[in-house]
Amino acid sequence: MTAAKVILDGNQVAMDIKEKLSGRVMSLLEQGIVPCLATILVGDDPSSATYVRMKGNACKRLGIRSIRVELPENTSTDELIAAIQELNADPNVHGILLQHPVPHQIDERAAFEAISIEKDVDGVTTLGFAQNAFGFADFPSCTPEAIVAILDYYHIPIEGKHAVVIGRSPILGKPVSLMLLNKDATVTTCHSKTTNLEDIVRLGDIVVAAVGRPKFVKGDWIKPGAVVLDAGYNEGNIGDVDYADCLEKASAITPVPAGVGPVTIATLLKHTVEAAEKLADFRENS
Amino acid sequence: MTAAKVILDGNQVAMDIKEKLSGRVMSLLEQGIVPCLATILVGDDPSSATYVRMKGNACKRLGIRSIRVELPENTSTDELIAAIQELNADPNVHGILLQHPVPHQIDERAAFEAISIEKDVDGVTTLGFAQNAFGFADFPSCTPEAIVAILDYYHIPIEGKHAVVIGRSPILGKPVSLMLLNKDATVTTCHSKTTNLEDIVRLGDIVVAAVGRPKFVKGDWIKPGAVVLDAGYNEGNIGDVDYADCLEKASAITPVPAGVGPVTIATLLKHTVEAAEKLADFRENS
Repeated sequence: MTAAKVILDGNQVAMDIKEKLSGRVMSLLEQGIVPCLATILVGDDPSSATYVRMKGNACKRLGIRSIRVELPENTSTDELIAAIQELNADPNVHGILLQHPVPHQIDERAAFEAISIEKDVDGVTTLGFAQNAFGFADFPSCTPEAIVAILDYYHIPIEGKHAVVIGRSPILGKPVSLMLLNKDATVTTCHSKTTNLEDIVRLGDIVVAAVGRPKFVKGDWIKPGAVVLDAGYNEGNIGDVDYADCLEKASAITPVPAGVGPVTIATLLKHTVEAAEKLADFRENS
Repeated sequence: MTAAKVILDGNQVAMDIKEKLSGRVMSLLEQGIVPCLATILVGDDPSSATYVRMKGNACKRLGIRSIRVELPENTSTDELIAAIQELNADPNVHGILLQHPVPHQIDERAAFEAISIEKDVDGVTTLGFAQNAFGFADFPSCTPEAIVAILDYYHIPIEGKHAVVIGRSPILGKPVSLMLLNKDATVTTCHSKTTNLEDIVRLGDIVVAAVGRPKFVKGDWIKPGAVVLDAGYNEGNIGDVDYADCLEKASAITPVPAGVGPVTIATLLKHTVEAAEKLADFRENS
């Protein structure tokens, strides 16, 4: 790696993913298949509403249909599952995304599990998670896949590197740890109970922040020359990484916004197109 | 922890687990339910045959029935899956264990997947793996659970400790990493592509060797006072850890034999009894 500092531009990576998709969308349309993503939003959290809208707009620009299912704040688990099952059964829907967090009365795990594996484009089911852990998932969780896509796009080697992941959630910290492990990184997963967190982070050739606390990761936690990926999105569009501070130390870093976020959305579109292609293949072969 | 060196006696932990089971087995027998483990052995690998025999004997001593299905070396994936499905359908079988490795012509993953989740007492299915990763598995893989059981039995704290796992297999390295993570350790997973392995292992407060290479882990890789768990079982009953060498440095260590092995078998029995109890509960409530 050269001494020059690289800003890992998520918009550019996202554009690359989307450019490669446009021909595939056209080809599906010619076969009479309109790829379609259904997003479900429960309650009226303003940031969640913004994310869902961004995803819908990104679909539209690429010729992907999007359906928005909006359910009231007091929706029960059973009602949410019923809505998911309706989308599972709808042959015109190829991908289903349940925007989280969901209101507290809902059993989020039960809701995630209700998504059929063929439409689980964000890898939230236990089955999708394990397939990713074993390295053969059709649809790994979008943010973890986006992080790997950014590293690949910028030809940043993963094999043999020490990756430190801060966070252990089922849709981010754990799956990204396992993806990096499958790509032959040595992986350390940290969390709120980690002692000497700063010392551990300082071991990382690659640092992934997925902790959900604004500007949590400081510059002096970063080994000089490390690659820093910020998967946080906190209120006010602030990442988990203190960007200005870490920029000094890192050889490469993702900004927020325009880092991991747009690549996550592009990955979601890619999975939706792939889900639609699988259906097209199935029709052709049956 | 005191300065005294602790030999983590797996036989003692196993006895404790089995003692707690005997009353539960009696109670099942009184209800007319004979807990039953079916083991499947494909081919004629002598060590595998020994392990299967040991498991069968352990069942017998506890009043658990065991069935041994032996299939020839040239069994196909389809034939193996058919045998598994027969056991899935048999109401008198509560747990199914496919002894691995299986001969090379068999798709091991497909075979594991064929085991129904209710009978997956070794946590080998993708679903069982993910449930364990998320912390709500009925039956985590037996060796990972045995490792945690040994730490618990000897009151060795896990929370906030740095655990280093050497190995990333789907039934050992990965699930034990995730179990220790769920128990609030900071977890580093290493493997054949790890650079500076010795330096990484030296970070570990808890070191789990699950690499499948005899006497691989040397004493000078071990941080003074670390706890060393040897999950290896190589030919000639030799562990993955150079025991005499590591004994010098460790505060606590499992021997081979009489370390992780017997606890793994006791855990398998426990899961079989639990699977039978679930059936009993189901009958009572339906």
